Amino acid sequence: MPVLEKHTGLYTDHYELTMAQGYFLHHKKDTPACFDYFFRKNPFEGGYVIFAGLQDLLEILQALKFDQEDCDYLSSLGFAPEFVSYLESFGFRGDLYAPEEGEVVFPYEPLVRVEGNIIEAQLIETVLLNMLNFESLIATKASRIRRAAGTRLVVDFGLRRAQGLGGVHASRAAVIGGADSTSNVYSAFMFGLTSAGTQAHSWIQAYDDEVTAFRDFAVAYPKHCVLLVDTYDTLKSGIPNAITVAREMERRGERLFGVRLDSGDLAYLTKKARALLDAAGLPHVKIMTSNQLDEYVISSLLSQEAPIDAFGVGTSLVTGRSDAALDGVYKLSMSDNKPRLKISETPEKIILPGIKEVFRCIDAEGYFRADCICLSGETDIDIICHPHRPDKSSSVATFRKEALYRKVMDKGRINVEKKTPGEIAKYAQQRLSALPEEHKRFENPHVYKVGISRKLRDQRFAIIDTIRGKFGKEGQTR
Amino acid sequence: MPVLEKHTGLYTDHYELTMAQGYFLHHKKDTPACFDYFFRKNPFEGGYVIFAGLQDLLEILQALKFDQEDCDYLSSLGFAPEFVSYLESFGFRGDLYAPEEGEVVFPYEPLVRVEGNIIEAQLIETVLLNMLNFESLIATKASRIRRAAGTRLVVDFGLRRAQGLGGVHASRAAVIGGADSTSNVYSAFMFGLTSAGTQAHSWIQAYDDEVTAFRDFAVAYPKHCVLLVDTYDTLKSGIPNAITVAREMERRGERLFGVRLDSGDLAYLTKKARALLDAAGLPHVKIMTSNQLDEYVISSLLSQEAPIDAFGVGTSLVTGRSDAALDGVYKLSMSDNKPRLKISETPEKIILPGIKEVFRCIDAEGYFRADCICLSGETDIDIICHPHRPDKSSSVATFRKEALYRKVMDKGRINVEKKTPGEIAKYAQQRLSALPEEHKRFENPHVYKVGISRKLRDQRFAIIDTIRGKFGKEGQTR
Repeated sequence: MPVLEKHTGLYTDHYELTMAQGYFLHHKKDTPACFDYFFRKNPFEGGYVIFAGLQDLLEILQALKFDQEDCDYLSSLGFAPEFVSYLESFGFRGDLYAPEEGEVVFPYEPLVRVEGNIIEAQLIETVLLNMLNFESLIATKASRIRRAAGTRLVVDFGLRRAQGLGGVHASRAAVIGGADSTSNVYSAFMFGLTSAGTQAHSWIQAYDDEVTAFRDFAVAYPKHCVLLVDTYDTLKSGIPNAITVAREMERRGERLFGVRLDSGDLAYLTKKARALLDAAGLPHVKIMTSNQLDEYVISSLLSQEAPIDAFGVGTSLVTGRSDAALDGVYKLSMSDNKPRLKISETPEKIILPGIKEVFRCIDAEGYFRADCICLSGETDIDIICHPHRPDKSSSVATFRKEALYRKVMDKGRINVEKKTPGEIAKYAQQRLSALPEEHKRFENPHVYKVGISRKLRDQRFAIIDTIRGKFGKEGQTR
Repeated sequence: MPVLEKHTGLYTDHYELTMAQGYFLHHKKDTPACFDYFFRKNPFEGGYVIFAGLQDLLEILQALKFDQEDCDYLSSLGFAPEFVSYLESFGFRGDLYAPEEGEVVFPYEPLVRVEGNIIEAQLIETVLLNMLNFESLIATKASRIRRAAGTRLVVDFGLRRAQGLGGVHASRAAVIGGADSTSNVYSAFMFGLTSAGTQAHSWIQAYDDEVTAFRDFAVAYPKHCVLLVDTYDTLKSGIPNAITVAREMERRGERLFGVRLDSGDLAYLTKKARALLDAAGLPHVKIMTSNQLDEYVISSLLSQEAPIDAFGVGTSLVTGRSDAALDGVYKLSMSDNKPRLKISETPEKIILPGIKEVFRCIDAEGYFRADCICLSGETDIDIICHPHRPDKSSSVATFRKEALYRKVMDKGRINVEKKTPGEIAKYAQQRLSALPEEHKRFENPHVYKVGISRKLRDQRFAIIDTIRGKFGKEGQTR
């Protein structure tokens, strides 16, 4: 069930439509084209990205259309009647190749290859970037928080601070990256996530005294009661009152599940709280924390041996703070059966022309060692070259090669089985476990090798030479 | 037309429903309650926030319901049949008080006062925070970009880097804060914004040579043709080819509207491009730039006298980078007709109890000088106290007072006339113009005074004393 159900065709940048109409008016609507999606920089100064958002994208593409209201709107903007009439029967009928959702991926490697006529392949640019950039950003952030938290519970608390409706896919991506559950009921319903949540300060405040607030809550929720203990004073009021209520529950044959701390020095307070609970004979009562957590704060708390069983993580998780976006781009690599590129003064921004494939190089112990981008159909790659420094190369001859691409959309129809976010999360953790530690650490992670084949390198140079040779020979009419 | 049309009741944190059921089961469903929405810190180290998202929130609240599918889902999660049956006929019937959308607002002042029964007032917390925090963040960012750009055109280019569906409201908020138009066709359609866009690098790449690509585009779009000149080499290829096509257009009685530069040193390249265009007799051709712009880059470009007519701003505008979120919170201030608060070890986190109003203090020249928070019904406020340092106070006796609150929702019905984002943008600019310069500058802006009345201060102290007096007297059963 796609969340974006109506007006899908309008969910685009205006210039995609301008260009589409341009191609249409110049009789290029059936020109074959190929675009690549890739990013240039790992977010969070990290060493990898978790590829996410694919299933959502595929569902939107399969349903993509311009209904009558959309067409009327485009007519009102001045689009030509013959083009609008073309859009009325438009559907995306192209092919997509991509790694499995949850794959561990790296800068510069093409993550999605889109083939279709130039209009359909161009029109999906914005929605593709919008979905994949965001979910990959959040899944990556979540995987870092999961790494910091170890086996402790991680709950997404972010909807209130999410970027508007961005919260919808943020919670899905958070679970793909490693969150156990979410406070977000809407996304839990849409994507089959586990939702969870107990009480806010307002519950406590609404009572004349804290112990009655706790007692009433425990009566309503005997099975999974978590009491928020910092409304007035964690150690002087919250924990003593929680102990009172926990003992009342024990007399009824019930058990208090946990307490939550949402302010103050969490390292200090959780140790004191744990000691008070243990001294009261309540070692089974879990301690949950929240309040501006991220992978760094969690690592710091645990390195101080804070006795925390669960983390509620909000803003940083669902917005990917401190990075706001993955810098993914969508570039034409082939049209009219000719490889295409764009030149830039920055060598890193020169794109890879032609129809390409991506292989992962895996060592004898099963670890990922390098990724190789080559032209479609190339086999037996033994050397990869640095994508921007052609003087640097490495041998990959001894590694087992695994193709990253599968055909995930075939003539506009989804070509892969739908997986739950939980299943995708398992796959992501399995793939991450094959990525050597040095690429996963938070501080100065080692750069994972992504190289190009010699054939691809040579093709790129040949096209650059041809284009540069033309400068000054066209258009100089002065 | 609200964008969030279905499953509105589920767009919430799980704990809102847990608490709502708790109140229901404890026969408190009709207990009156009042909550305040406020934030604690201006984003971007700035001096103000533009209040935005109100109309979207009101439309969602008016339509809020749990349909059969939602209720079935909640039953499956274990919510009690009698509570789910209550939700089946649930609608928000409370009152909301708020400033006009587009108002200039400040930390700690209550921006929305919600009154209703405790269940309805609690249940809307998440969606209220989600909508207002995000749109206010983006409108504020846009107002800073508008300030940097002066009267030059600012176009939102952000959808591809927006946080998923967050892009929908980001574009609306961007226009409220001062963007002229957007690339986002979906939001333009939904909210009546102006959408705009011409061509990407792919258009140029799809042709064998740049001049033919430009020519074909000019033929398709003779009226508003903007050519992207940096695909191969801005000065050696793009600008010369644009000049060729501009001259061909002139021979047909048309005019090239502009060129766009999307890479390289924009200060250097725009000056060179301007000189080439002027020398070719094309002084009317406008220069547009894009590529990782924000208020600081724009200020820097203009301080270098870069001859830029229009800015396309993407990631920073729609994500509010470098801040990811406004830290707005929603706190219970009254229930069962008793003022309520929460205590914290951090004085800034102690909330303001009771039903309150907010007044703006305006000097004889029409400038905003301070805002005053007082108890509802208070008049003739002449002194305001610092909200966290009760030893500090200021006289506001000579200022004209203007009430910021209007009743924007009455028993669940929208009580204000709907304005277009363009009208709200005008209001925001008008209000910003009454805010003294020292609060608007980017570097160390002067802190705008927000104070509380002496009655409110005294009420707060009395409640804190009562609560602290109870510590150790309840719950100490060991």
